[in-house]
Formats: sequence, structure tokens, C-alpha cells
Amino acid sequence: MSDKKLTNKKLKVGIVGGTGYTGVELLRLLSMHPNVALTAITSRGEAGMPVAEMFPSLRAYVDLNFTDPAQANLTVCDVVFFATPHGVAMSQAEVLLASNVKVIDLAADFRLQDITIFEKWYKLSHSCPAILSDAVYGIPELYREQIKSAKVIGNPGCYPTTVLLGLAPLLEEGLIDFSAPIVADAKSGVSGAGRKAEVATLFAEASDNMKAYAVAGHRHHPEIHAQLTKLAGTEVQFIFVPHLIPMIRGMLSTIYVKLSDKAKGLDLQALYEQRYQHERFVDVLPAGVLPETRSVRGSNQIRIALHKQGDTGYLTLIVVQDNLVKGAAGQAVQNMNIMFDFPENTGLEVVPLLP
Amino acid sequence: MSDKKLTNKKLKVGIVGGTGYTGVELLRLLSMHPNVALTAITSRGEAGMPVAEMFPSLRAYVDLNFTDPAQANLTVCDVVFFATPHGVAMSQAEVLLASNVKVIDLAADFRLQDITIFEKWYKLSHSCPAILSDAVYGIPELYREQIKSAKVIGNPGCYPTTVLLGLAPLLEEGLIDFSAPIVADAKSGVSGAGRKAEVATLFAEASDNMKAYAVAGHRHHPEIHAQLTKLAGTEVQFIFVPHLIPMIRGMLSTIYVKLSDKAKGLDLQALYEQRYQHERFVDVLPAGVLPETRSVRGSNQIRIALHKQGDTGYLTLIVVQDNLVKGAAGQAVQNMNIMFDFPENTGLEVVPLLP
Amino acid sequence: MSDKKLTNKKLKVGIVGGTGYTGVELLRLLSMHPNVALTAITSRGEAGMPVAEMFPSLRAYVDLNFTDPAQANLTVCDVVFFATPHGVAMSQAEVLLASNVKVIDLAADFRLQDITIFEKWYKLSHSCPAILSDAVYGIPELYREQIKSAKVIGNPGCYPTTVLLGLAPLLEEGLIDFSAPIVADAKSGVSGAGRKAEVATLFAEASDNMKAYAVAGHRHHPEIHAQLTKLAGTEVQFIFVPHLIPMIRGMLSTIYVKLSDKAKGLDLQALYEQRYQHERFVDVLPAGVLPETRSVRGSNQIRIALHKQGDTGYLTLIVVQDNLVKGAAGQAVQNMNIMFDFPENTGLEVVPLLP
Amino acid sequence: MSDKKLTNKKLKVGIVGGTGYTGVELLRLLSMHPNVALTAITSRGEAGMPVAEMFPSLRAYVDLNFTDPAQANLTVCDVVFFATPHGVAMSQAEVLLASNVKVIDLAADFRLQDITIFEKWYKLSHSCPAILSDAVYGIPELYREQIKSAKVIGNPGCYPTTVLLGLAPLLEEGLIDFSAPIVADAKSGVSGAGRKAEVATLFAEASDNMKAYAVAGHRHHPEIHAQLTKLAGTEVQFIFVPHLIPMIRGMLSTIYVKLSDKAKGLDLQALYEQRYQHERFVDVLPAGVLPETRSVRGSNQIRIALHKQGDTGYLTLIVVQDNLVKGAAGQAVQNMNIMFDFPENTGLEVVPLLP
Repeated sequence: MSDKKLTNKKLKVGIVGGTGYTGVELLRLLSMHPNVALTAITSRGEAGMPVAEMFPSLRAYVDLNFTDPAQANLTVCDVVFFATPHGVAMSQAEVLLASNVKVIDLAADFRLQDITIFEKWYKLSHSCPAILSDAVYGIPELYREQIKSAKVIGNPGCYPTTVLLGLAPLLEEGLIDFSAPIVADAKSGVSGAGRKAEVATLFAEASDNMKAYAVAGHRHHPEIHAQLTKLAGTEVQFIFVPHLIPMIRGMLSTIYVKLSDKAKGLDLQALYEQRYQHERFVDVLPAGVLPETRSVRGSNQIRIALHKQGDTGYLTLIVVQDNLVKGAAGQAVQNMNIMFDFPENTGLEVVPLLP
Repeated sequence: MSDKKLTNKKLKVGIVGGTGYTGVELLRLLSMHPNVALTAITSRGEAGMPVAEMFPSLRAYVDLNFTDPAQANLTVCDVVFFATPHGVAMSQAEVLLASNVKVIDLAADFRLQDITIFEKWYKLSHSCPAILSDAVYGIPELYREQIKSAKVIGNPGCYPTTVLLGLAPLLEEGLIDFSAPIVADAKSGVSGAGRKAEVATLFAEASDNMKAYAVAGHRHHPEIHAQLTKLAGTEVQFIFVPHLIPMIRGMLSTIYVKLSDKAKGLDLQALYEQRYQHERFVDVLPAGVLPETRSVRGSNQIRIALHKQGDTGYLTLIVVQDNLVKGAAGQAVQNMNIMFDFPENTGLEVVPLLP
Repeated sequence: MSDKKLTNKKLKVGIVGGTGYTGVELLRLLSMHPNVALTAITSRGEAGMPVAEMFPSLRAYVDLNFTDPAQANLTVCDVVFFATPHGVAMSQAEVLLASNVKVIDLAADFRLQDITIFEKWYKLSHSCPAILSDAVYGIPELYREQIKSAKVIGNPGCYPTTVLLGLAPLLEEGLIDFSAPIVADAKSGVSGAGRKAEVATLFAEASDNMKAYAVAGHRHHPEIHAQLTKLAGTEVQFIFVPHLIPMIRGMLSTIYVKLSDKAKGLDLQALYEQRYQHERFVDVLPAGVLPETRSVRGSNQIRIALHKQGDTGYLTLIVVQDNLVKGAAGQAVQNMNIMFDFPENTGLEVVPLLP
Repeated sequence: MSDKKLTNKKLKVGIVGGTGYTGVELLRLLSMHPNVALTAITSRGEAGMPVAEMFPSLRAYVDLNFTDPAQANLTVCDVVFFATPHGVAMSQAEVLLASNVKVIDLAADFRLQDITIFEKWYKLSHSCPAILSDAVYGIPELYREQIKSAKVIGNPGCYPTTVLLGLAPLLEEGLIDFSAPIVADAKSGVSGAGRKAEVATLFAEASDNMKAYAVAGHRHHPEIHAQLTKLAGTEVQFIFVPHLIPMIRGMLSTIYVKLSDKAKGLDLQALYEQRYQHERFVDVLPAGVLPETRSVRGSNQIRIALHKQGDTGYLTLIVVQDNLVKGAAGQAVQNMNIMFDFPENTGLEVVPLLP
């Protein structure tokens, strides 16, 4: 990796809502980022508490206290990450942009360009449609050029990242037969549910157990659907069934897709390897190798395997990522690196933790 | 539940290969079965060791020692279960049958009627094709009448039980459009891999981790395929992707199937409830309710949920069972109850362990 | 096991607070108890909801709905279990006793005879000291005779059951040198924290992780201390450090005790075996065998191992139980059996679930 | 942290036995170490296989293949780590030292200075007593000066590191009353058992389960005992009970020690904070705060909490580390940094992975 663009510049970085899992994950990554000066971390409930008291893993790495959002002077920052519930970023974006602060929202406020769909699924009216229309959907491997000049990033949901990077090479080349729906059977670790006190995600409920959930409609369905349709250039039927798996981190999506006639003669393995050969964080596995979620634990890597299903005309894609890193905080940092012209992997070269 | 058929008869029961997970599970169930006298439990490696020394959970319940297979007089038994690797049951079945001993094989020797397919997938020549042709595939809810008079049962694999009971009502009524393949995305707890010392299933490898495996071909694929084709009365295309999940027990299969035009107007929920209304161990969940694997932990129950996928024309089925009970030992005991004319639930009324 | 006392009598049983883990565990055991008719299950928050909707494991076993406590006519019951927060049982005991209903409290209201200590640790004033003074501490192996005629049982805490049954043979024989404190290093599965929505017991917090907690004072310390002192006939110094372990169920207490000179010449293994030889639920393991928590998973068994620590003069005791069964609901049912003169193991012969 | 000693020097580093957990952990840390050039990784069984094929987490980080030990030219290295079974390092140390290669053994060959004890516990004759007598026991916080000039390091066992760093401040100041034995009740994640195919550490055996083991004698007992005695300057009685906990990584030792009269009046919290104030990897927690194992997951940190047990005269110490990092590979790298005069934390600033 070339470090030629690495400068001594230190960005002033703010985090709104630092007490959830994407918050602590941003802190883990940003505290070791050579070009970042953590400037403010807000929490309504925990103002005044040292961050490292709530997250002892950050002792010796983060010296800040949580600040009350009302008091945090976020406008001095170069960039502010929102690791908040849906609806918070859009309420603050305007003020920040006016102060020339860039915004990376890890919630859904800037992911869906269709406001009707946003309001239907999130039960919120969108407070800044003008900003939304300039926001960029933050998957660097798909929208790198737009991200470079973006002021607002809608950082994607965890599930969408796996499905979209899994399907992009096929969509870009027109290799899918849309007469059959695309099926994504997705599996997520429990941290995906966040750090909220809820019975359903207690250890004694979620351990040694699994289930499908939100079969009748998950908020990532419209997000994936919109992107699939955009990349395909045509309306796409999409079936999405998420499952909750008793592991802390990790996401595996198994995608079933009907190949077009054109695809059947192609070397899809080669196509994928070529498509992603310059992507630091997308790893197409050798033919016949299947990925494990732990192979990306704690890292920004996404790994993809392909398997043609005999003579059925279907392709199975298996995609793994760490839901909190490439599926959330790591991708957000990757977006920040692009926006501020740092090498894309700065602060993101963390070897996965195995075992 | 009617107990009218309950007699004081005690069957003499033998278990060949009692040291694996299906073995200890048979012991758990049979030690509390009012009509069973455990007579012999064999193990090549552990002959002489008290069963309860290897499995302390059985202290106070099982007093037997493991016996050397060569010395075990299994011909005095009424029924012998094989909880052995593939190939053992077929080598001993003839002698047992000659002594009027019934055989329930929990391995694959008597599951596949097509010997060519058996030999291809299991790399074994079949030593008793004549017995095989009389063997019954042991899913009571599909083949109860044949089981009643069977002398040899091929107890189904764990995955097949979920897929076949999940699809049976549609297959029986001709409600599937076979122009698209049936997709079964299946997830299993680690006990499904058995009690063999292997690196891949060590705690430090399999915990906080998941993966797909055997995508290029799992032995349960031909088994399911043969039964689907039989029940459908036509060749069926079937895609099967199993996944290893970090839980001890439990299996969840998510099945995606294209409905025929005829199906689209029907109340499939009602159809399923009606099909299984008299089945003690098949529980069709109310519309909108999704099953968790722990809801059947330790029990012979299988639970099924249906969800129509909007206007795609596809139905999703979600099926859970305990892979060691309804997926193995419990179903074997259920088969035994039918073969010996006990009430089908005898010894199988164990409330699932939750949490 | 003799069934000679088994009658056809069906007790009317009520459960107050059936939505927590001890509640669902009582339901698991009582729904299969041949002498029990579940009559009422109350829940303030869930009145009207079918019990089996909250706990699908109970489908086909429990047909009742939760009832509002204010409306439940508990006075028709023969016995009422309180699976509630501390303070509830003492507020209702008087009315129930007046109607000749026996009370088994799984919370702390009737465990501590010293009201000052109760009020200090539980921050509640005791509302019925007269009833308390008649209440019996419900460890059958220590207080069976008193339990037979008791009207109110203070069912012990989970930790105390392991420590007290672990030490009773030594205490009864005067074999401990009290010049050194008794140390109990105790480990509990997460279900011990109950089914409350709390961040600290989320899967993503408690999994792949462990910690000591309440080192400065756990409520079971005074409970154990009071019983130790009673059994020893002298003031005992007692150090207690509980730990939270990433497993659903299971408790293991490692107890370090200084032996008296008298003890040093004795065969303590034989002493323990003799002390508990007629106790169905206490299993002294053979010398050299160590217990696993899973060997009692789902069962009312408690297993004890002893090890003399070389020439240090100390004995280590290792005691395992299922914290929800012998540590809570199972022991409560055992107490009920004694109070109503059923064979003590009625409804409690459940083989542990392994694996 | 000062980087003043950081040079551009790249050490040539060899690893013998790279296929176990300490091996892959060395690779994780060394592949990111700015002063290390991985030169050879040997494995008898896997020679020729790319390291990243066995450990996909290392894709993009480690390009080497495993080499046959017989063919590996380890004498070109500056330092060789042995992540092998006991007995391998001592068979190769002489040749390496003759070529001026330093040796860091993560097994036991150079931990115990008393050969009689070594041979008793490890059932191996020691092949190079002369080298052993020059070897240094590799806990930097205790033996930093000796490590600087050492040619051979006996890297400590995982348990000993927690116990010795937990007790060192008391031992150094003579604050323990040795009339009572020191008790260490220690808990380890399953990775401590290594990456060997064994039934006892299978997921389905070790998950949702815990046990004490090796109560009659664990190999770390003599190691700890020897060091305690050395640090105390007197013979110390020591009771050690290890437990296996269902987590991948992490170790927590709870230590019970009788304080001397001198200690009773001291501020032990302050003493500990002062003793370790300049130690980058030892973190004394604020009074009243208890550590979780996950707070050090993946990092070289060790955290210590103290609690005086009321008026018993005993102190409880609670010490956590990642058994594979500070308990093995991380400490080995720390030792390497000292031996080669790099800043001690080089390559070891990895933020713990939480959640």
C-alpha cells in the first residue's frame, strides 16, 4: 500500500452517541488512526463520565469524557460521525454543514433517496430533503468518486453491504436473470441489535439458540432493494430473511441468484477476482474455499465465495464481514479516509482476531 | 393423550455404538421409557467402562457397562438401534433379522433406495440390497403405515427431516411450481458433527463463528432429493446449503419455494394446520409467529412457520427441530413406538429446556 | 424408587410471577408432575397472554393464560409458589395462610431469620415477622423434618444451596478449623441474573467474557453466613466471591476450607458418601472424578467432589448444580413434595441434557 | 509513548510450530510489527501449505508457506520463537545459540530451573541444563534487566503470569502472612487447551458448561510455586485450582491471600498503583472497579483489582489477561522488544476488541 498521501494533518473528529456498539467501535479504530484527533464524544445519558470508564477496553487509548450533546461544540470539528438512533443526524446536519463540518451518519437518515419509503419504514418525517439529495451512499467500492467530494455520507446498513458487494459484479455486467427473485438468507451476530437493554437479546435468551426474524419486513429490505434496482437499471424482486445467530460479531449472507444465459458461459470466479483486484477490503476467495465469519473478526475485510449450483442455473454467493466494522464503523472510517484524501486503509490495518 | 395401548411389556433394547451424541441421546430417552429394558450397549473402544462414567448425566439412570461388539449377544433383543458410522448396520442386519430382531439404523445404510447413489456418496458398497429394499424411511408423519410393519428402519438424516416435513403439505397437494429450484438454507448446531475429535469443531474454532460448508455436495442432498422427487411424483431441482452455527443443539431450515398458480389462492396456513392437526410432534405455529431453536431443545417437537413473500410468488418456510431428537434419537424412538404398537409419544413427553 | 406414597391426589397449584426464569422452570417441572393441577399463574404485565405464547417451549404442556395478580383467586390453591422479586411473598403470605394455602417463596423474604440483616441487605422492612419465625429454610437434605410440617418455605438462594450442601458433612461432624475463613469461589451461568432487560447481561456483553462481581457484598453472603453459623454452632468467617460465566445454566462452587486436626485422619470421601447415601438428589462423585455443570443441566441433581490439598491441611470441595433447578425451581418442587407427602422425587426424574 | 529508540532495523524472525494458537497469535502480532521480517515458519505436518490457507485471517498479512522443520534454515534468523510442544526448544537451542540466534520458548523447557521438578512434571529429561541455567523467566515486569541481555527466554505459562503479577507487590514488600496457603482459583478460556483435536474441548462438550480440572496437580503449580518462593524468599504454600470456562480467550485468576500484620495498616491500592505506574501493560484498576476478561481481548494488557475482605484479614486479587497475548504470544513479543532494544510496546498497541 502506498503511503504517499499520508500527511501529518490531524482531523478534528466528533462522535455523536458514543455509547453504543458502533460508537465504541469507532473509538477503537479512531483512537489508533494516525490522522485523527478525537475532539468530542457526546452522550445524553452519560455526560461527564470518562469514556474509558464505560468501556475499559479503551483505558490508555481514549482520555475524553462524554459530553452533553447540547454543550458539545461540534462545529469546530472537521467531521462528525453519528452513531445514534435514526433521526438524530438529520436534525443536526444543517448546522454542521453550515460550519463546513462533514457528516457521516451510521443510522438510516441519509441512506434512502426516496423519502416516501424512508418515512414509511422509519416512521419519521425527513427534516432535510435537500441535504439528503446531495448525500452519498457510502460503499466505497461502488461510489468512491462521489464519496471523495461528499459532504454527507449515508453509511450503509450492515446487511446491505454484504448483499450489494456480493452482487455488484453480476449486476454491473448484466448477468442476472431477473425472472426469479434474488434471495438473500442473511445471518447476523447479536451485536447487530445494538447495546440496548432488551429481553430478546439477553445472553440467556440468545445463546445456544437461533431464529429468523423480521420475515415480514426488515428495514434493510428497502435499502437493498433500492440499490439493487439502481445497479441493475431495472426493478428487481428481492427476498430477504435475516436470522439472529449466537455470536457477538459477524455476518454471513448466503445469496441465491438465477444467472442469465450470458453468465452461464463465463468464468465468474475470474470476473469477481478482476472486479475487486484493487480493492483492499474486498477479498474474493479462491474457488472452492468458503469463508468463516471469524476470519474477519475485528477487521474491515469482506470475503466473498462463489459456487455454481450444478445444472440449476443458479449461483450461490457467500459473503462474510464483521457487522460492526465493514458493516458499520470500519466502513465509516474508510469513507472518512476517502473524503479527506488519506490512503483508504489508514487506521484500518487490523489483523482479524482468530481464534 | 390416550394411554390405552400402554402395556406392561418391556422391550429388550440394544444400542450399537453408544458413545456418540445420538447414542447418549438414545440413552437419555430410553432410560426413562416405561416399556424399555436397556439390555446391551456396545462400544469397540470403551468395552468394560460403565456408561455413566463416560456420561455422568446418566448416573442413577443407566447402570450398564459398554460391551465389546463381538461379545454382545444382541440377538436376544427385540430391537437394536445403530448409532454408528455408516456401514455398520448393514453388516449386522442380516444376523439380527434372522433372529427376529428389528433394526433401527440412525446412519445412512437404509435411507437411500438407489444403491448407485448410496455408493457414490458414501464410498461403500452396499452389503445387503435385499434388506434395503424392504427397509422403510423412518419419518412417521409420512410413512407411518409402512413403519408399523417394518423390520428395518432407515432413520432419516437431521436436515432431511426438517425439509421434508416442511414441504410435505405442498408436495402432497401439488402446490409447488417446479420451474424454479427449491432452495433450503439450513443451519445446524455443532453437535450435528458428532462426538469426534476434530479441529474444526473445537470450541475455540466453532464458537463466536459461523460458516457455510459442503456447498459443493452434502450427503443429505441426495437423500432429500430422492424423497422430494418421490413425494412430488416428478423430478425436483433442489439447492441445499448447510451452515454450522455456534450452538450445541438445534437446527433451523429456511426453505424458499415457488408456489404454483393453484397455491396462490389457497390459505396455506390452514392447509398446514389441517395436515398436521393429529401429529403430536409437528407444531404449525400461528400465522406471524416465528420459531426459535431453543423452543424445542431436548424435545421431539418440530415447529413450522409459513410466510408468503409479498407478490414474488414465493413461500418461505421456517422449520426448527432439535437435531439430536426429532432429527435423530427421538425420531428413532418414535419409530420404535410405532413398530411395537406403543402410543407414539411414549417416553417422548419431555418439556423443552428453556432457557 | 418406591412409589408407594403416590396417590391420585392433584394439588391445586398457583404461581405468582410466572414470567421470569424461575417461573418458566416451575412450569416446566409442574406441568409434568402427576399430582399437580396448575390453577393460576399471575403476571402484572402480561395478564391475558397465554403462557405458551411467551414461552413456546410450553406449547402442548401449559394451556393457562397469565392472570392479573389482583384478580387471581389464589386462595383456592393448596400451595402457591412466589417466583417474584423480593418483598412480594411477604405482602401476600398472611392472606394465603389464613385460607390454609401453603407458601413457597423463591425470593428472599423467608430465608433470613434475622430481620435486621434482611432489612439491611434488601432495603425492605419485613411486613410479617411472625410468619417469618415459623418459616423453614428449604433445603430438604438439612431440614426435611421441619419442611414436612411447614406452612411457609423460604426456598434458598442458588449459591447457598451449593455451599451448604458442600460443607454440611464437615460442619455436622465438627471437622473444620475455623481459625481460617471458609472461602467460596462461586461461578454462575447468566440465567442467575434473571429475565430482566439489562445491558450487563446482553449476549454481546456477557458472551465470550467473564468477571467477578459483588465482591464487596452479595446478598447470598449473609444467607450463607447465617446457615454456616447455625450448622457450625459457632461464628464462622466466610469469604464469598461470585463470578458470572458465559453459560445459560449451571453453577459451580469451589470451596476452600481448613480441616481440623480431627479431620486429617478421617476418610472424608467415605464420610460424604455415607452422609448422602439416601439422598436422591445429592451425588458424591467417586474419588478423583470432577463434575461438569452440564452433567446436571435441567435436573435437580447436585454433585460434589472432594480433594485434599496435599499437605496444606486444606480441603477443596467442588459442587455443581443447575442454578434454576436444584438452585431454585427444582428444590421448590422437592419441598412441595415433602410438604404434601409425595415421594420426594415425583416430577423431578428428568435426565440431564447432555450435550 | 516515546518512540525514540525506534529504528529501521528489521529483525529476521523464525517461528517453529506455527499451526497452534500461540503460533497464529505470534503471526498476528509480528506481521504488524514494524521491525520484524517474518523469515520462516515451520510445521512438520503442513510443510508447503501457505500459512494464510490454514489461517485465512492472515490473508494479505502473511505471505509465507509453512516449511519442513528439517529444511528451515533458522540459523539465519536473529530470533526464533518456539510455539511447540514441550521438549522441542531444548532440542534445538544449542544449534541456534551457536549461530548467535536468540531463543524465546513459549513451552516449558526453560521455565523451571529445578531439573528434577521439570522432569517429574513433564516426563522428559532435560537435554541442555547448561543453557537452562542461563535462561531467563520472561515476565518483563519482574525480570526486565535480565531479559535485556538474555539469549534464551522461558516464556511463562498463562496462569503463572496472572498469579505472579497479581502477587508481586505484596511479595516484594513482605506483606503476606504465609501461615495460610495462598489460594489461586483460576479460570481459563478454552483456547488455553490448544488447537489439538480432542473430545473434551469440542464445542458441543465445552460450550454452556464449565468444570474444574487438574485439581490433583497442574503443571503450572510447580512453576508458580517456584517463582512465589523465589520472590518471597521463603517456602510458600500454594493451592491452585484451574477451571475451564466456555469462552475462546480470556483468563481470570481470583487470588486469596492472608495479609501480614504490617499490611493491614497500609494503603494497598496505592502500593499497587505505584508499583506498576510505569508498566505499560499492567493496569491497576481504580478501587471498587472489577475487570472483565473482554476488556483485554486481543491485547497485551493485564488488569488487576484488589479487595480487602472485611475483617477477615484476607485480600482478594482479581487479575485478567488474554491468555494468548499477555499469557503467551504478546508477552513473548514484549520480551523480544526488550532483548533487541525496541520500545517495549512496539507492535503491541492493539486496542482490545469489545464487544
